[in-house]
Amino acid sequence: MLLAELISVGTELLMGEIVDSNAAYLAQELKNRGVFIQWKTIVGDNLERIVEAITRASKRSDIVILGGGLGPTDDDLTREGIAAVIGETPVIDEAYLEKLKAFFTARGRSYPESNNKQAWVIPSSEALENPVGTAPGWFVRVPNSSTVIVAMPGPPREMNKMWAEQVLPRLNLPSSGFYHRTFRTFAIGESHIAERLAALTQSANPSVATYARRDGVHVRVAASAATLEEARALAQPVEAQVQAALEGHIYGYDDESLAAIVGHLLVKRGETIATCESLTGGLLADELTNVSGSSRYVQGGAITYSNEAKIKMGVKAQTIAEHGAVSRETVLEMAVAARTQFGATWGVSTTGVAGPDISEGKPVGTLFVGIAGPNGAEAYALPTAGDRRTIKERAALNALGQLWKQLTEQVKA
Amino acid sequence: MLLAELISVGTELLMGEIVDSNAAYLAQELKNRGVFIQWKTIVGDNLERIVEAITRASKRSDIVILGGGLGPTDDDLTREGIAAVIGETPVIDEAYLEKLKAFFTARGRSYPESNNKQAWVIPSSEALENPVGTAPGWFVRVPNSSTVIVAMPGPPREMNKMWAEQVLPRLNLPSSGFYHRTFRTFAIGESHIAERLAALTQSANPSVATYARRDGVHVRVAASAATLEEARALAQPVEAQVQAALEGHIYGYDDESLAAIVGHLLVKRGETIATCESLTGGLLADELTNVSGSSRYVQGGAITYSNEAKIKMGVKAQTIAEHGAVSRETVLEMAVAARTQFGATWGVSTTGVAGPDISEGKPVGTLFVGIAGPNGAEAYALPTAGDRRTIKERAALNALGQLWKQLTEQVKA
Repeated sequence: MLLAELISVGTELLMGEIVDSNAAYLAQELKNRGVFIQWKTIVGDNLERIVEAITRASKRSDIVILGGGLGPTDDDLTREGIAAVIGETPVIDEAYLEKLKAFFTARGRSYPESNNKQAWVIPSSEALENPVGTAPGWFVRVPNSSTVIVAMPGPPREMNKMWAEQVLPRLNLPSSGFYHRTFRTFAIGESHIAERLAALTQSANPSVATYARRDGVHVRVAASAATLEEARALAQPVEAQVQAALEGHIYGYDDESLAAIVGHLLVKRGETIATCESLTGGLLADELTNVSGSSRYVQGGAITYSNEAKIKMGVKAQTIAEHGAVSRETVLEMAVAARTQFGATWGVSTTGVAGPDISEGKPVGTLFVGIAGPNGAEAYALPTAGDRRTIKERAALNALGQLWKQLTEQVKA
Repeated sequence: MLLAELISVGTELLMGEIVDSNAAYLAQELKNRGVFIQWKTIVGDNLERIVEAITRASKRSDIVILGGGLGPTDDDLTREGIAAVIGETPVIDEAYLEKLKAFFTARGRSYPESNNKQAWVIPSSEALENPVGTAPGWFVRVPNSSTVIVAMPGPPREMNKMWAEQVLPRLNLPSSGFYHRTFRTFAIGESHIAERLAALTQSANPSVATYARRDGVHVRVAASAATLEEARALAQPVEAQVQAALEGHIYGYDDESLAAIVGHLLVKRGETIATCESLTGGLLADELTNVSGSSRYVQGGAITYSNEAKIKMGVKAQTIAEHGAVSRETVLEMAVAARTQFGATWGVSTTGVAGPDISEGKPVGTLFVGIAGPNGAEAYALPTAGDRRTIKERAALNALGQLWKQLTEQVKA
């Protein structure tokens, strides 16, 4: 198996001032071709540390990919670093220098001499043209070794084009054989999933991994083989086992959000939805309306933060007086009101305590969700925890999840 | 000078499937305290490589900060890695185990035995409590060395809280000689700001930098000196110049969100707000209610995605028929309706085309914002661009920004 390693060069990356979006792109590209990434290092604009990083990487990996540090300034030290590791001296490539000058002229800019280092080459390097910027890349075959060092500019637009058009053909990688699928779950914790999948997570290929995300735990099945078809076939029985083990908790696959899945179910059934939010304060409707085409089924919604607003929406003043605004009884009437006032098939409501202070003597994290539908209304007490924003997010997720359960259970019934 | 090094653990980070937002936070925190970061390494869920990374880091850096790999599953190997490097054996901390069990019980969840490893400690480690999750951190003083190894959970909310409340006090860093202040602006682009600040951005100390963010352009003034007081004094004249150059565009400082600033102004004036959203679909109310204490002034809101919902809220059917739902006229009536129906001082409304498809023949990015207040109502046409989510975010920002302008102009008048 081929091993690749990524080195991002730049103090602003190290300081987190800009986000390195190249890593995700390269990881996907390499993985799809059966190349395994074991390390990623971020190093500042410092020659000694760049040399240290390249030296170590070229000993333990087959393909070392550097991003950034190819600009024209004294701070751009990737070329110097590679040359030092290989033990070769950079010289100006006169033909490339002419191209660089032409690039400037074509854009009506004068050519600064300081730019000359972008025309450097070393005997072991091939210059990789950059049609969208001034920094050429380097493709370096390390002498007396099978290791390849690739240097590409940091801006994603330049890097992606150079990778696809010039690096990939030179690497001559075997054809793709990587398959993966993510199962998205609701209302089951990571450790419970781990228990149910225990035997499967020990396997290396296909591999099964769990990730706790803000929208629930994701389970990822991945397989490598000589071809994509073989990898898919290898994964298939494991996928079936994951599906069976998590029956009733899987709401979607890969990039499908819970709001998109709920929307898809509503469209299929020709139904509509309306919301009445206290705790979530608009987030539930926001998530529903993030989905393209949601205007087909989102009828409307109300944010009833004050008691007056709840009463105006249709909650009985007596219910609030007797049970409080944060109660099973109130959330139930809110759900019914959403459904009735907006003439929707489903009404979904939330109430609770987002914090930081307690409310009506009820603790931060108290959450009630109401679902009103064609067959009546139900309220759920689903206490949660976290800071204000986390509680809002978990409440919106739980409201969507309860609706999803009702929509799918009715399908089965 | 103290050197720190970051190690992020997780195959999903290495593969670029999730973005590591902790690095930026930690880099800032350390820089502010004069600690220098030279390396950041990302390593997958592999014990051998985690051990290799920690071993190297603890030799060359004073503070090694690990993020992630503290979950309950077999894939979570940060604790095992540290124990192997130090040469100590983890044991269960019975007192912490009880706390963990209580955490599950409080949330109505059964406790899975597989979770026990989250109660592990080694003789050199102190467990750092995690009030917002199950994974405790570790603070490890490496025996016979001045090196400190810190392990914190990956989710930013858990990590940030643990860092501020538990790690920082234990690190006992020298007092800060770094001062910075961020100016948050509305309705002015990065290049215009750069033009107005031209001379200032050339200076290294104090430094002035601009960052285009989702909520507007931020301008950051920073200064270093022997003490915080000296740094502050150094920055002061530059801050005054920035303030003057961007007069009328600065809505807040440092971490103050536009929604928080608007909320603060409303509280000061004893006023309330209500919303009526079409395009933003709940996001405007969501942002308002993210602010702690917003229940004092958020009266309520409506999401009127359908024409029926708009009409029910108080928009005239004739207005929609004549001008369309996406129009200056409709957004004006929506703002007035929000104010009237919820009995609020201010009504704020949005309508437009979030895409991906055009609507009423109007292009994606069309945006109208309405503000109704004690002195009448105004509508603003503020066309924007981007994908569906970006358009929603910019629309919510513009709605808050227009209200902010009215609130501050009235103060001046």
